[in-house]
Amino acid sequence: MKKSMITAVLILAAGLFAGQALAVEQFKEQRIIRSGETASIKGSDKFFTGNVRIDPVYPANNAMRSSGGSVTFEPGARSNWHIHPVGQVLIVTSGVGLTQEWGKPIQEIKAGDVVICPVGVKHWHGAKPNTSMTHLSVCEDKGDGVVVEWMEKVTDEQYSEYKGN
Amino acid sequence: MKKSMITAVLILAAGLFAGQALAVEQFKEQRIIRSGETASIKGSDKFFTGNVRIDPVYPANNAMRSSGGSVTFEPGARSNWHIHPVGQVLIVTSGVGLTQEWGKPIQEIKAGDVVICPVGVKHWHGAKPNTSMTHLSVCEDKGDGVVVEWMEKVTDEQYSEYKGN
Repeated sequence: MKKSMITAVLILAAGLFAGQALAVEQFKEQRIIRSGETASIKGSDKFFTGNVRIDPVYPANNAMRSSGGSVTFEPGARSNWHIHPVGQVLIVTSGVGLTQEWGKPIQEIKAGDVVICPVGVKHWHGAKPNTSMTHLSVCEDKGDGVVVEWMEKVTDEQYSEYKGN
Repeated sequence: MKKSMITAVLILAAGLFAGQALAVEQFKEQRIIRSGETASIKGSDKFFTGNVRIDPVYPANNAMRSSGGSVTFEPGARSNWHIHPVGQVLIVTSGVGLTQEWGKPIQEIKAGDVVICPVGVKHWHGAKPNTSMTHLSVCEDKGDGVVVEWMEKVTDEQYSEYKGN
């Protein structure tokens, strides 16, 4: 992997869930990022509650504005409330978790489910209290590299509103 | 799932690998597409060699220009040569397959590998002769819904150039 690619992935890793602007990598040929080349990082306590691991998948590149990261929430872990300036798609790849749009009931999401969250809709996502959940997150930006705007934490009271099994 | 969503997914299913323009769905609230809601479709013989299954994952929506589909290639199956007008990212989710950029050697790709294919780069991807491969394909468009431009088939002679194990 070229140094520029490593740099892009590291910027992605640092910025994906930190509200920082992401770099756009430019390639002239096909590039393969091998499994294991990109280090996992710990989700910041500023933006998450509980143990969260982020595995960067791909940076915005060339003409493409989307970037992707895999996020694993240990039982009880969740994101803060947040919005996406262009939107987000979550593809649940493992486990069972929860998501909630502001003002609406918490919903369970399972491996194979896909969550489409439109621009500006305030939401959170994470694990269930007793099961982990991993999703691929795909976001886009407006050309400024900003894919998320972080808000307040999901309180234990809010999180415990889910009564399903 | 609302009728409009079903329509969007069906259009995606029909168009994703058929060179047709894809619809952009508009949502005002978070939408969950449940696992199993979207039917698998058979990859067209016009664009693929061998047995290929496409499972639409998400349509372009709201401000987001990307769309995603999961593609499974049975052993020996592969796409035609093609280019993407904005580019493509492949996330190998299962198995071991092959990909090749025009004029370069065939490369093996395994679960966890990510392939970034820049705008206009001619390539193909598929299974190995004796193993299946599944990847998530993420493409974007220029606002016209066109995510792929199909070309000629990968001949048996071209496909057999790979000598690795």
